[in-house]
Amino acid sequence: MRLATIRTLEGTTRAVRVEDDVLVDLGAPDLGAFLADPAWTERAAAATEPVREVRGAAFAPVVPHPGKIVCVGLNYRTHILEMGRDLPEYPTLFSKVADTLVGANDDIVRPPETDAFDWECELAVVIGTPVRRARGADAERAIAGFAVLNDVTCRDWQFRTKEWLQGKNWEATTPLGPYLVTPDELAGGVRPSLEISTKIDGETVQQDTTADLLFDPVALIEYVSTMVTLRPGDIISTGTPGGVGHARTPPRYLQPGQVLTTSIAGLGECRNTCVAG
Amino acid sequence: MRLATIRTLEGTTRAVRVEDDVLVDLGAPDLGAFLADPAWTERAAAATEPVREVRGAAFAPVVPHPGKIVCVGLNYRTHILEMGRDLPEYPTLFSKVADTLVGANDDIVRPPETDAFDWECELAVVIGTPVRRARGADAERAIAGFAVLNDVTCRDWQFRTKEWLQGKNWEATTPLGPYLVTPDELAGGVRPSLEISTKIDGETVQQDTTADLLFDPVALIEYVSTMVTLRPGDIISTGTPGGVGHARTPPRYLQPGQVLTTSIAGLGECRNTCVAG
Repeated sequence: MRLATIRTLEGTTRAVRVEDDVLVDLGAPDLGAFLADPAWTERAAAATEPVREVRGAAFAPVVPHPGKIVCVGLNYRTHILEMGRDLPEYPTLFSKVADTLVGANDDIVRPPETDAFDWECELAVVIGTPVRRARGADAERAIAGFAVLNDVTCRDWQFRTKEWLQGKNWEATTPLGPYLVTPDELAGGVRPSLEISTKIDGETVQQDTTADLLFDPVALIEYVSTMVTLRPGDIISTGTPGGVGHARTPPRYLQPGQVLTTSIAGLGECRNTCVAG
Repeated sequence: MRLATIRTLEGTTRAVRVEDDVLVDLGAPDLGAFLADPAWTERAAAATEPVREVRGAAFAPVVPHPGKIVCVGLNYRTHILEMGRDLPEYPTLFSKVADTLVGANDDIVRPPETDAFDWECELAVVIGTPVRRARGADAERAIAGFAVLNDVTCRDWQFRTKEWLQGKNWEATTPLGPYLVTPDELAGGVRPSLEISTKIDGETVQQDTTADLLFDPVALIEYVSTMVTLRPGDIISTGTPGGVGHARTPPRYLQPGQVLTTSIAGLGECRNTCVAG
């Protein structure tokens, strides 16, 4: 199934199942609220009406107000090794707040305070079941589905101090969408093996496969849920492969007017215009 | 005024004004919901009924589900200088999730996965007005009040990687309470000058004054709101003074059965028993 949160003409949002030709309303204001019902899988599969037009529907962030957005630093094996680093024993974790999120086709806002606005395509995991200290099959079952995220980052602010938070938490910078796809529909299932890429005005700047993740989605749920309960609608973003602008010589950054396209095969794409804030 | 969120016998919570002898109900399920009403100041001052007994009332976290909890690293001048460091140009920021919070008299849970459970008394700022890029008087007016927080930390996890998040985000480790006090009732107002301390089983282990903050509450609101909108109920915790267990020779950590008391003059105290998780 493909599930999303869409904006209505009345200025509210609705959770929907996305079909090729229609959107089926799921009876909840957004996907976060919908996933909080333990029977969401059955409800999502059974819903038949009312239906909405796909044409003209605007995607909100898949989950507009996640309680947590936990992000992972270096996590693509090839990229870690090409940087001359050893594979780390533990994932590097930081977080974003919900106000950073935008929908799959919304503008992303480059703040006037940065000169180094950079892209990071990522596979995002959406949690569907509350779990604490989940292991193995329990961690696998906690995955509602996967979506595309771009962890757009102000590099100058990221490196002001040792903690990355302030490069990663700018309002309206982080597309999440267009929908989540349940693991049963994906190559690799809960450990997806999917092509992932970023394009700037159509030029490919990042390209890899999510099969290269050092800490896969199940391992990340095991790790993070050791600390704290993961709840329906929470997001874990799994890190980005090589090809970010900051690592280029000379560095290259997003400019207003450019179109950022973030794609994962089977999960669709986010296509966002960078605008000056 | 002193405002709090208390737990009811029915298992819900309510926002209240705290008087010496009674709690006055504010007509909202918690202080986060109450502060979202732009007229909260007038409503809080005008409320007269219904009243509840203070005796036996259990404090929930002042704001049980903040949208953001932004924390500051090194921020007490004396402590920075005694560590032989230069005063930093920018605050070091990291964050906690709402699931870390407990009430002022709840148990704090030492996870079995840590051998280094440490204390950090802090002055917490509670936001009362939405602000973005606030400066000066606008940043001052965004402060609803102040409360006591203890950023209890798993040091071994904090230093697994360069990012501190995973030492700081353990469930039920972070007391926030007992109430917020509005700036008009405090020495120093929006830049409070108050004694702050931590005691373990009655022995003082941290003691300083919040007047020593390098980045004061107003400066922190200016800085963080540059990145992202601060919203009613959001928390900024302003950092801890010297005296943490990790910096001692030999290091000293919290043990199950010990009572952690975190006090700020005029803001009351959190008194939490450490229990084995």
